[in-house]
Amino acid sequence: MLSRSGGTVQGMGRVTTREAVLKLGGDAGRRSRDTLAAEEPLEIRVAGKQIAVTMRTPGDDFDLVAGYLVGEGVIREAHQIARMRFCGDSACSGPVGLGGEWSPDRIEAAHDTYNIVDVDLAPGTALPLWSLNRNTYTTSACGVCGKSSIEAVRANAHWSVETDPVQITPQILYSLPQTLRASQKLFSKTGGLHAAGLFASDGTLLCVREDVGRHNAVDKVIGWAVRDDRLPLRGHLLAVSGRASFELVQKTAAAGIPLLAAVSAPSSLAVELARESGMTLAGFVRGESANVYCGVERIASGE
Amino acid sequence: MLSRSGGTVQGMGRVTTREAVLKLGGDAGRRSRDTLAAEEPLEIRVAGKQIAVTMRTPGDDFDLVAGYLVGEGVIREAHQIARMRFCGDSACSGPVGLGGEWSPDRIEAAHDTYNIVDVDLAPGTALPLWSLNRNTYTTSACGVCGKSSIEAVRANAHWSVETDPVQITPQILYSLPQTLRASQKLFSKTGGLHAAGLFASDGTLLCVREDVGRHNAVDKVIGWAVRDDRLPLRGHLLAVSGRASFELVQKTAAAGIPLLAAVSAPSSLAVELARESGMTLAGFVRGESANVYCGVERIASGE
Repeated sequence: MLSRSGGTVQGMGRVTTREAVLKLGGDAGRRSRDTLAAEEPLEIRVAGKQIAVTMRTPGDDFDLVAGYLVGEGVIREAHQIARMRFCGDSACSGPVGLGGEWSPDRIEAAHDTYNIVDVDLAPGTALPLWSLNRNTYTTSACGVCGKSSIEAVRANAHWSVETDPVQITPQILYSLPQTLRASQKLFSKTGGLHAAGLFASDGTLLCVREDVGRHNAVDKVIGWAVRDDRLPLRGHLLAVSGRASFELVQKTAAAGIPLLAAVSAPSSLAVELARESGMTLAGFVRGESANVYCGVERIASGE
Repeated sequence: MLSRSGGTVQGMGRVTTREAVLKLGGDAGRRSRDTLAAEEPLEIRVAGKQIAVTMRTPGDDFDLVAGYLVGEGVIREAHQIARMRFCGDSACSGPVGLGGEWSPDRIEAAHDTYNIVDVDLAPGTALPLWSLNRNTYTTSACGVCGKSSIEAVRANAHWSVETDPVQITPQILYSLPQTLRASQKLFSKTGGLHAAGLFASDGTLLCVREDVGRHNAVDKVIGWAVRDDRLPLRGHLLAVSGRASFELVQKTAAAGIPLLAAVSAPSSLAVELARESGMTLAGFVRGESANVYCGVERIASGE
């Protein structure tokens, strides 16, 4: 029951707001208006049960939820979601709602008022036991929460990326952040958004999303790919505008993407997980330079 | 039972790691080693019950937990924590542990192996009902999680900052990020850490903390202040290295701090909450310029 018709709705709806501001600097303060990135809570429910709340920039919300469920190991394919819909207000307490389908029009219509998405999983697809049996909770701002112990942090990906033979030149690697930045419509307005971009192995940009939360941007990109039945994303590349955290590596691996490129630094645990997953992780990809922390065999040497 | 003897232990222990890296750029790749910010999960328990897991840079973990509990509205003063201790491994399932006190030595000793802190609250201090009665979960990476509805996001601060008469010059405002950056020992090594700094109203830096998670850096600073019985932090200023999100404004207000200065952009909801709280919020504080979104009366005009 998932619409395939949708493209992005980013840029439409309330993704930015205008706020009065006192600009300081130079000789004197002056009053002006500033464009800010919108931030609103999104509550994710499965069969009426709250499983996460994330602070996100409105737009592509159904993609965010789908990508989040991939990262949490709940789904791998679009057909595993029977239905997604907005609840009209926070008093909505069960699987009732607007009856909206997963299409951009519905998302758009819901921007101004609706911050709750309820998911019905298809028969045969279930939430992991940890979310049902334990007093735990997951958030897309914290990829490890909801696992009942710290050991469970290193959750298995749906697919192995270890054997993915894709290989790219350093020039393609360098081009990813540049292409990503050039596609960031909202960042140039607000200066306040993270971005994630999915690329083909030749550096062609397939999908870009911006969000106040870096994890949301990645979830939205992966949700777009799920909706288009593209998982596992073998031979694809993911680029992010900021740092590479453990959680971003986890989400990348869960979607079957063999290479993650970040503009800034990775953390120690991000490198550890990428190495264990057989992924290629590049950081500080800036201009004509980059640091490759693992999976160097996917970067073609020489010319 | 809280030690007051402690200063920072940041810079000691495993706050950075060294990783092999292939450096690309120029004529050919070369192998080298890179210093990365350490990232490890920290599980927070109250009386043996898991209430949060956050990905953080090890160090000042007890301060992180204390600051987190302030932000969640659980405590306001150090004496409300009867005891904090590390559990030795993830199999630790109750209020048993190393018996360590809240002192830097114990934190240091626990760096390499311990990622669980268990808190005993003092008599008369209790977890809010939402954490006991509902199947919810909180994380310091998501300040709104654990509230049972989206309406509850706008949680009340412990203290009102609205009437705080502190006033600073634009020059003091400009100086905050510069002082913060100059104090970021780890950022210069790794390029991968957020920072938060607490300042007196004359711009004197009182405490700075760095972490892979921006919220953790703020929690560590506020936890330091709690330990020193400084709350509410009237007349103080908080500066953060990145963007100003809703959650950071929430944590700032919960500690009674009347002014938050961010190097990058605020979100729409950050401005909204700051305005409703009577706080001063400044963004894009760079060089000799800044945008003040609300609480402009605290910025002295003219010279």
